[in-house]
Amino acid sequence: MCTAIAYKNGDTYFGRNLDLDRGYGESVVITPRRYSFPMRYMEPLTTHYAMVGMATVVNNFPLYYDATNEEGLSMAGLSFPGNAVYYDYDGQKDNIAPFELIPWVLGRCACVDDVRQMLRRLNLVKVNFSEDLPLSPLHWMISDRQGSIVLESLADGLKVYENPFEVLTNNPPFDYHRIHMSNYMSFHTGASDRRLGQKIPLDHYSLGMGALGLPGDFSSVSRFVKAFFVKENLATGESERERVCQFFHALNSVAMPRGCVQTSDGLEYTRYSSCCNVDRGVYYYTTYHDLGISSVCLHDVDLEGERPIRYAVTGLA
Amino acid sequence: MCTAIAYKNGDTYFGRNLDLDRGYGESVVITPRRYSFPMRYMEPLTTHYAMVGMATVVNNFPLYYDATNEEGLSMAGLSFPGNAVYYDYDGQKDNIAPFELIPWVLGRCACVDDVRQMLRRLNLVKVNFSEDLPLSPLHWMISDRQGSIVLESLADGLKVYENPFEVLTNNPPFDYHRIHMSNYMSFHTGASDRRLGQKIPLDHYSLGMGALGLPGDFSSVSRFVKAFFVKENLATGESERERVCQFFHALNSVAMPRGCVQTSDGLEYTRYSSCCNVDRGVYYYTTYHDLGISSVCLHDVDLEGERPIRYAVTGLA
Amino acid sequence: MCTAIAYKNGDTYFGRNLDLDRGYGESVVITPRRYSFPMRYMEPLTTHYAMVGMATVVNNFPLYYDATNEEGLSMAGLSFPGNAVYYDYDGQKDNIAPFELIPWVLGRCACVDDVRQMLRRLNLVKVNFSEDLPLSPLHWMISDRQGSIVLESLADGLKVYENPFEVLTNNPPFDYHRIHMSNYMSFHTGASDRRLGQKIPLDHYSLGMGALGLPGDFSSVSRFVKAFFVKENLATGESERERVCQFFHALNSVAMPRGCVQTSDGLEYTRYSSCCNVDRGVYYYTTYHDLGISSVCLHDVDLEGERPIRYAVTGLA
Amino acid sequence: MCTAIAYKNGDTYFGRNLDLDRGYGESVVITPRRYSFPMRYMEPLTTHYAMVGMATVVNNFPLYYDATNEEGLSMAGLSFPGNAVYYDYDGQKDNIAPFELIPWVLGRCACVDDVRQMLRRLNLVKVNFSEDLPLSPLHWMISDRQGSIVLESLADGLKVYENPFEVLTNNPPFDYHRIHMSNYMSFHTGASDRRLGQKIPLDHYSLGMGALGLPGDFSSVSRFVKAFFVKENLATGESERERVCQFFHALNSVAMPRGCVQTSDGLEYTRYSSCCNVDRGVYYYTTYHDLGISSVCLHDVDLEGERPIRYAVTGLA
Repeated sequence: MCTAIAYKNGDTYFGRNLDLDRGYGESVVITPRRYSFPMRYMEPLTTHYAMVGMATVVNNFPLYYDATNEEGLSMAGLSFPGNAVYYDYDGQKDNIAPFELIPWVLGRCACVDDVRQMLRRLNLVKVNFSEDLPLSPLHWMISDRQGSIVLESLADGLKVYENPFEVLTNNPPFDYHRIHMSNYMSFHTGASDRRLGQKIPLDHYSLGMGALGLPGDFSSVSRFVKAFFVKENLATGESERERVCQFFHALNSVAMPRGCVQTSDGLEYTRYSSCCNVDRGVYYYTTYHDLGISSVCLHDVDLEGERPIRYAVTGLA
Repeated sequence: MCTAIAYKNGDTYFGRNLDLDRGYGESVVITPRRYSFPMRYMEPLTTHYAMVGMATVVNNFPLYYDATNEEGLSMAGLSFPGNAVYYDYDGQKDNIAPFELIPWVLGRCACVDDVRQMLRRLNLVKVNFSEDLPLSPLHWMISDRQGSIVLESLADGLKVYENPFEVLTNNPPFDYHRIHMSNYMSFHTGASDRRLGQKIPLDHYSLGMGALGLPGDFSSVSRFVKAFFVKENLATGESERERVCQFFHALNSVAMPRGCVQTSDGLEYTRYSSCCNVDRGVYYYTTYHDLGISSVCLHDVDLEGERPIRYAVTGLA
Repeated sequence: MCTAIAYKNGDTYFGRNLDLDRGYGESVVITPRRYSFPMRYMEPLTTHYAMVGMATVVNNFPLYYDATNEEGLSMAGLSFPGNAVYYDYDGQKDNIAPFELIPWVLGRCACVDDVRQMLRRLNLVKVNFSEDLPLSPLHWMISDRQGSIVLESLADGLKVYENPFEVLTNNPPFDYHRIHMSNYMSFHTGASDRRLGQKIPLDHYSLGMGALGLPGDFSSVSRFVKAFFVKENLATGESERERVCQFFHALNSVAMPRGCVQTSDGLEYTRYSSCCNVDRGVYYYTTYHDLGISSVCLHDVDLEGERPIRYAVTGLA
Repeated sequence: MCTAIAYKNGDTYFGRNLDLDRGYGESVVITPRRYSFPMRYMEPLTTHYAMVGMATVVNNFPLYYDATNEEGLSMAGLSFPGNAVYYDYDGQKDNIAPFELIPWVLGRCACVDDVRQMLRRLNLVKVNFSEDLPLSPLHWMISDRQGSIVLESLADGLKVYENPFEVLTNNPPFDYHRIHMSNYMSFHTGASDRRLGQKIPLDHYSLGMGALGLPGDFSSVSRFVKAFFVKENLATGESERERVCQFFHALNSVAMPRGCVQTSDGLEYTRYSSCCNVDRGVYYYTTYHDLGISSVCLHDVDLEGERPIRYAVTGLA
């Protein structure tokens, strides 16, 4: 399970919590423009936009969880079990494996409008990366400075939704979250209005009673609601440091402390949180056992390189 | 508003979020044994247990928000507006000003049993620290390695409650929180039980549905519930680092991002979070704009000293 | 468990749901002025106000669940297990058995002010009606045309609370319900306000979204909230029939269908619902298996009589 | 807004609350087999199954809100504003106006399987009954002794859903309700399980705490949840009277008292509640101002007749 957020506050920021019950050797990876992404059914991507994000690198291929390219286009894959449906090869379409999708999109598109065009030809093919790495059921949030969309490959086909919330979590499909958010339209950060029993002395016993009923459990629907409420109400920050802190405070408010969410054979927790300043190409992150903010800047490397550059991440235990 | 937690995980940890809409020059302060605490109505405390905690120092007097003494006894004051009632001088009692209470208790008691004895004579007197620093309405959680109590000075007198939750937030009085927690006795970290409509295919669409209904707003009652749920379910950690991280993740789950809670003329947010290892006398903390963990150790200084030692805190903006 | 409501709508109405898992031979009973109520520790009440209500009659003694006297003073006893504490005989007080309390109050008081006076001398004594009828743990709502109070005999003594809600259910003590109602002060009958994400198209998909979050389970705290919300918003009725229907619709909204609430060895359900027009002395009621409204009028009998008059009730199965 | 329920308890029962802010001259109407239903685009239904239900009769045409035919097939139309989409005439389909749909289905089908077949050819045409009676946005529940389906004409076409809940209310589309019900799978009628803080004395202060969180507001999503919970847990009744009372108690638990739900220019309330014993063809009903149960039996009239038979309904104010 995971939570992704896009947020404008001076610059534009895009990030996510990655919630899993085990690790896969994640590291921050910059892929420069000339690394050749091999593709299963398409020609390799020999030149493309450079990108930075968190990935597991297998056989030199960066399997990105989330990334931002040099144009400021960002994308995150989030777990979508039971609803993601991948298809057989289709000769009329661009056949892309789910694990190829982030490079395919970020490598070739500069903005969400480009993505919308490209998705018309997309067919997500059910093919494993390897026997050891079976297919993950995913859906994706894709964001630029103007807005966000959600991509879902469902039983009745590929869906592209406008996402004015600029938040994504997991199940059910996005359409459910969209309707469900209507229940929270009156929530706010101040004191409760007085409507009921106006002659009766009812007490604002606490600050923040205008948000009573905001969910705080760790399910995907509840995290969507809380993440949106917090993001929408975040005070702006004057400095980059303040803005980045604001972003991480928002992610922390829906993060999973280890022990609070059981999986079938383990404990799900927020392994890392990321916040990319998409305008500056700086990828900030914290990890479960290293709460301080670290960062990697896309523009600190030679973007014309041919090999992915990995940055070790601490505190992933 | 604030949240305090006591938590046993190998060692014993005590800490809190301090939620305010402005700062008062907080710093970490070690008060050694021979600093003489002046008292308004009692003899000065010329020798006492040493203590470490977060305080605003005014005229050399450490106004502690929370602290732990060298015996491992800990105490935090939390906002309690509208319910805290302080009294006139009473010649039959120990007359203590609210701002003197933490030194009075931590300076003289080694454990909660000592505190229970001492509280029998306590009268909390309504007296300001100064014209600039009016009286804060507070209640207190006091904890040792065995357990926690809550102290409230209400309109009908001084109350001392056993606090098996080892969590405290703010209003209403503790007795309300105690009853209210009964509503959450069935909450858990796994998948929902199947009870309703057993022949109907209902879907565990997310992990963590056993905690559906857990509140996530920032009101005092909701923070009490969530803080207890998280603390109670935290996985143990093997190293000091892991345990301390677990504690901060619990505090983060009920922290206030700036912008989410309005006060009458500002925005309340979690200025700092603390976690004291009471067995080792190490006071860990993070601040709103410095998410990494800093620490100060009580035993690193000469505890026989006569002057409070202040450690500047960054990121309190 | 039960729900009592007092409601002004042209005339004043007082009524309740009686929720039990079995019956005790309830009937509507008018007690005229000259029936002599025997008392365990006090002189018998030889003359008193006449009253009408629902009672189980044992040995000619009407054990009232709720009743209204000829002055319009009304009173209902509601289950209060675990919190009601009855005391030993006290020579300084009026010693009244809990089952004597409704006749004692309604027989001698014309209004709530009278009751307040009388309660100063009250001691609720722990004495059974008989070996077959052990003591019920109860608290009471007492209402006249001006307002309502609640009477609770707790571990720390007899408490009399103003009850501006004019609703009573069961546990916890009234003080909890009073604070808890603050959480609902913003609830209303219209469409939700738009506060969150104002640029995002959120949909009022249903009427009545201003009350989202109103509880609908059958626990005592939830019934208190819903009963108050419904009562407070009831449209006035122009005719007696309309007003009485409104009252029963309010009671139906918090009634227990049989099967929805388990007791240790049965099923709790709303055996009867009552609505007394206290100005006219008409006691209306419905029963679980007779949904139509029946009525008995206090003024249809000779109020100077000496024997309780019972009216059989159908549909109590 | 409305709530429909199908329920097996010995016999099979089908009924609904009709929630509106005004009346349209509803009466109980039996349509015998030889009344010729005129159709806008199809041949008239000259012979068909007889049916009984609540209808507004205009120009001798019974506009049914809900009805049951002599085979025990039942159907109710419920408000579906904003989501119901009706279409232009389609020469390849059976073109039916929404107001013709209940006679079209109940007149020709004996069971839900028949309906499924017939719906394959259905096109719901956007045509008014008259200038005074504009098109109502509706969706429908259709039930026989085996089960229920839901029919929705959405923007992306006609949808037929299995409805294992056998409950229907209003917006959002059925698919939302289906997913949403997953949140309640652990709800039950007993005491809460003890899971959280097992060493801490938490109190079952009320019966029924296993259903804490059940919604009680009047929105369509909340009524769906509560109606299903109540229906699913209803105790069986031994007599027809008991079973019918159980059904009405379930409907009462989600009924709208007048005043609790505002429309744009009025107050929505439950004008009538119905419960048809589909095995015996007895249509029971109550109205807002006549709480007692009335009934009309399909088999009391000559089913070979040619004219609808109307039964006046009292208490509809």
